[in-house]
Amino acid sequence: MKDLKTAMEEHLDGLTKPRGSLGKLETWCVKMAEIQRKVPPEIKKKGIYVFAGDHGIASCGVSLYPQEVTRQMALNILAGGAGINALAGGTGWEITLVDAGIMGDDLPPDSDRKAACSLVRARIGRGTRNSFEEPAMTETETEMALDRGRSLAEDAAGRKIDLAAIGDLGIGNTATAAAMLVAAGFRAEDMVDRGTGIDDAMLEHKRDIVREAVKRRSPPKDGKAILQNLGSFDFAMMAGFILGLENKGIGCVLDGFPVSSAAYMAYLINPQVRDWLFAGHLSKVAGHRPLLDHMGLDPVVDLDMRLGEGTGAVIGGHIVELGVKAAREMASFSSAHVSDTETPEEKY
Amino acid sequence: MKDLKTAMEEHLDGLTKPRGSLGKLETWCVKMAEIQRKVPPEIKKKGIYVFAGDHGIASCGVSLYPQEVTRQMALNILAGGAGINALAGGTGWEITLVDAGIMGDDLPPDSDRKAACSLVRARIGRGTRNSFEEPAMTETETEMALDRGRSLAEDAAGRKIDLAAIGDLGIGNTATAAAMLVAAGFRAEDMVDRGTGIDDAMLEHKRDIVREAVKRRSPPKDGKAILQNLGSFDFAMMAGFILGLENKGIGCVLDGFPVSSAAYMAYLINPQVRDWLFAGHLSKVAGHRPLLDHMGLDPVVDLDMRLGEGTGAVIGGHIVELGVKAAREMASFSSAHVSDTETPEEKY
Repeated sequence: MKDLKTAMEEHLDGLTKPRGSLGKLETWCVKMAEIQRKVPPEIKKKGIYVFAGDHGIASCGVSLYPQEVTRQMALNILAGGAGINALAGGTGWEITLVDAGIMGDDLPPDSDRKAACSLVRARIGRGTRNSFEEPAMTETETEMALDRGRSLAEDAAGRKIDLAAIGDLGIGNTATAAAMLVAAGFRAEDMVDRGTGIDDAMLEHKRDIVREAVKRRSPPKDGKAILQNLGSFDFAMMAGFILGLENKGIGCVLDGFPVSSAAYMAYLINPQVRDWLFAGHLSKVAGHRPLLDHMGLDPVVDLDMRLGEGTGAVIGGHIVELGVKAAREMASFSSAHVSDTETPEEKY
Repeated sequence: MKDLKTAMEEHLDGLTKPRGSLGKLETWCVKMAEIQRKVPPEIKKKGIYVFAGDHGIASCGVSLYPQEVTRQMALNILAGGAGINALAGGTGWEITLVDAGIMGDDLPPDSDRKAACSLVRARIGRGTRNSFEEPAMTETETEMALDRGRSLAEDAAGRKIDLAAIGDLGIGNTATAAAMLVAAGFRAEDMVDRGTGIDDAMLEHKRDIVREAVKRRSPPKDGKAILQNLGSFDFAMMAGFILGLENKGIGCVLDGFPVSSAAYMAYLINPQVRDWLFAGHLSKVAGHRPLLDHMGLDPVVDLDMRLGEGTGAVIGGHIVELGVKAAREMASFSSAHVSDTETPEEKY
């Protein structure tokens, strides 16, 4: 993609600003040009998919929130009252909630709620099994979840989304994420996080659970096997979504630690995925930084957030969009009759 | 403001999210509540003021851009073709260009251009004198510039702006900023920046000019004297604007190094100003970090930008707004029937 990159950089250098002065906005704009194979790129529509699912490992007491909160928060998102509704609304994203496998009855029909976001019913089951006791999913369930994720990538293309984002919702999902990553070779000390609230005893318990689950399952270090043994419906569906975006001309913005762990499974399956991924933010969860470093992704913002739902992704993705917007809308030195310097890279 | 702060924190803790999980968005939301004395705060209108002026020190050869670029870029902003137009447009800010003292004829009347932004004609003169040779301004000019800045703060209040931002435009303004800060006690090695383009020889020349100008003027270390001797019409007007926002219930977002240097002069005059200031971004200019640290301001984003015009301020200020939006729009645990945990600060 060398020629495309050069063309994009030349376009940026011709705009009425000191060369390179939009910093990382220029870097990401070049990446979007490569993804879309278009100079300058264009972002007309942004869509965030929030994948919700329940995690069997939650029954091991790794979270202080009761497991029914997954369903309650899904209803809250559908009703427009969650953090992602406010932040996506303020940054121009359409929200789709994907029920990948919440526990309990199906979510109520559309008529019962406000149309704050779309709902996709893609449930593989009522929560995964507890990976501490048995494999989280069967091979068939894993394939189904990956396939439904790929279908959602087709759906995004059909909706003409230029920039997608992924959010997560599910009690226990940081424990699942940590277990997958430890199975992939990361250290449990780095991946199991205290947050700002768990006391020493509970942190030690969570680490023990994660270490023992990984030891008991001992999956081979490939993305699909790890997802099946230690993952979840929602994480497998996210991975399928990311894999399915190949050659679709759609960029994809990751949220925090759970979403990035699913992206890492996709990356193990196909390392090319990082070519269309952006890290929306660096979360406060300690394991997030080494994980992003490993995939070579530079987070757009670092705001000490750890809410999930895609709240960091929509902020970071919006900043990627701003770079594209500047590249499309700014005048050139010649069109605006502004004197350029002969020496590049100088601040005026 | 202790009670207000507590009330704001309690409001945030009641929303459907793990406590503290919106990270710095919550910190800034609390600050806006203190500024507006209102829980939750509200941002209905955002206005950026881009102060443009010419700097006599530019004739010492401290920039590779010719000085007429100040005027050309002012026209570019008025026509809607500059970086700030694209980025303010994408983040919901109204733009006002303030001609604080551009060289040459008055900018053309409104009828000659698109209404991409408002123009305020507040020119004190056709560029400042060269502070390397003589004081940049007279005492009367300095007072006039400060007063016009204060009038613009009144203007912002009259327009019912809740969040203001400051941008800068002027060839040579990083040299002026560095000279003011060196006079205030910062080290020239830290304040005179290479950018990514100046070669060693030119950097040494710029440092020599700055050091010699400071030595020749040797103003007392107070904000007004430094502005008069080494500053500029635009910087004095920015300082007056910031000082004038006291008790107006308006937050103010700073852009990069030049704007922050003007804010530092305001801070020397009245250290309370930091109570209503936000640092929109950390620029790539090396001196910016120590300057913000000194005022106790934590930059919202760090995107390696060094464009000026307020481009970093509008991005950072928009993120401050998003925190306020979340605080206003999110459901509470009780209203959304979401189970809370008894233990605060835990990630669900």
